Amino acid sequence: MIPTITAFECSPDRGRGLARDMRVRWALEEASQPYDVRLVSFDAMKEAAHLALHPFGQIPTYEDGDLVLFETGSIILHIAEQDASLLPKAAKPRARAITWMFAALNTVEPPILDLMTARIIENDKPWAQERLPLVMDRIRVRLAQLSARLGDAEWLEDAFSAGDLMMVSVLLRLRMSGLLDEYPNVAAYVARGEARPAYQRAFAAQLKVFTDRA
Amino acid sequence: MIPTITAFECSPDRGRGLARDMRVRWALEEASQPYDVRLVSFDAMKEAAHLALHPFGQIPTYEDGDLVLFETGSIILHIAEQDASLLPKAAKPRARAITWMFAALNTVEPPILDLMTARIIENDKPWAQERLPLVMDRIRVRLAQLSARLGDAEWLEDAFSAGDLMMVSVLLRLRMSGLLDEYPNVAAYVARGEARPAYQRAFAAQLKVFTDRA
Repeated sequence: MIPTITAFECSPDRGRGLARDMRVRWALEEASQPYDVRLVSFDAMKEAAHLALHPFGQIPTYEDGDLVLFETGSIILHIAEQDASLLPKAAKPRARAITWMFAALNTVEPPILDLMTARIIENDKPWAQERLPLVMDRIRVRLAQLSARLGDAEWLEDAFSAGDLMMVSVLLRLRMSGLLDEYPNVAAYVARGEARPAYQRAFAAQLKVFTDRA
Repeated sequence: MIPTITAFECSPDRGRGLARDMRVRWALEEASQPYDVRLVSFDAMKEAAHLALHPFGQIPTYEDGDLVLFETGSIILHIAEQDASLLPKAAKPRARAITWMFAALNTVEPPILDLMTARIIENDKPWAQERLPLVMDRIRVRLAQLSARLGDAEWLEDAFSAGDLMMVSVLLRLRMSGLLDEYPNVAAYVARGEARPAYQRAFAAQLKVFTDRA
C-alpha cells in the first residue's frame, strides 16, 4: 500500500510549484517513497468529505491506511521520520532539523503569507501600495537574520534535512518579489534546494497536473 | 541537570501569559519537568550571544547540556516526546497530536499574528481602522472551521496532547479581541486548557517575573 496525498485539481499558481502539495511531493521523492495523488476541486475542498480529512479545507492531506494527516509540517515530519536522509536518527541533529522546520513555518512564513495577502487579497484596497513596503520590510528582517545565520554554509545544519526542505519551500514563495536577490547567500541556498533531483522530480509531477489539464 | 529556557526580562504583555515562554513553561509543567529560566533584555536578544542560540533574536530558547533549541513548536515537541501525557507513544495518535501542533502554528496563528501587527505595529496608519475588519474576518474563518471540527469534544483528539497545548496557547492571543466569544465551544475549549493545574503553575511563574520586577 502506498500513501495518497491530495492536490489542487487546478492550482492557482499554474504549476509553478508554490502549492503546498509540492512540499510533500518533494519529501516523498527525497525518501524514494511512491505515492498516489487525488486531485480536489475548490468546491470539493469545502465539502464534508474533504473537511473530514482536513478541517481547514485545504490541501495537501496524507492518507496511509487508517492514518490521516493534514498540515505540510506534520506530513513531512511523518515522512522524514521514516527516512534518515530527511531526519537524522541521532537525538541532537534530529531535534535541530525539526527546529528549522518550525522556524520555516512559524517565524519565516507568516510575514511571507502577509505579502501574499497584501498582493492578492487586499491588492484592490486604496492603502495597498502604501502598506506594501511595511510588509516587505518585515520579510527583510527575517531574511537578514537567516542570511547571517547561514553564512557560507551549504545547509542550515551539517547536512540537508527536512528543515532545509521546509525553509527552501517557504522562501520560494518570494521568487517573484525580488526580495531573495537582496540576500545572495539565501538566494543561492534556495537554488541549491531547487537543484536537487528529488525537487526536480516533484516539480515535474505537479506541473504535469497543470499541463495535462490545459 | 535540568534544562534552561529564556524569557523576556520585561515582557511586553505585562505578565498576561502571552509571551511564548508561557507555552514552554506549560509543557514543562505538564511533563513535571523542573527547569531554570534565564531572563533576557530586549537589547541582549539582538546581541551575538543570544543570536547564537536563536538566529531570529527571540525568546524562548531551550538549553539542555549541549542541545540548544529555539522555536516553541520544536521545544514543545522535544519535551512532549519524553512524556506520554503530552504525546502518545502509539504511532497514529502521536502523528495526529503533532498535526494539531502544526495546525495551530501554521494555519491558525498566522492570521492572529496579522491582528497583532494591525493593532500594534500598524495602529497609527491612516488605513488601520478600515483594514481591521478584513483581518478579523480571516481569523473568523479559522475559528468557524475549528469550532465545526471540535463540536462537543473536550479536546481535539481523544485526550489532551501537545496539540491542544499549542492550539489553546495560540487562541489565547485572541482573548482581548472578543472573537473567541463568537464561538462558544472554542471559548470553552480554551477555558479548559487554562483551567489545567499545569497551565496555572506556568502562568503564576511567568507572572511572578513581572511582579517581582514591578
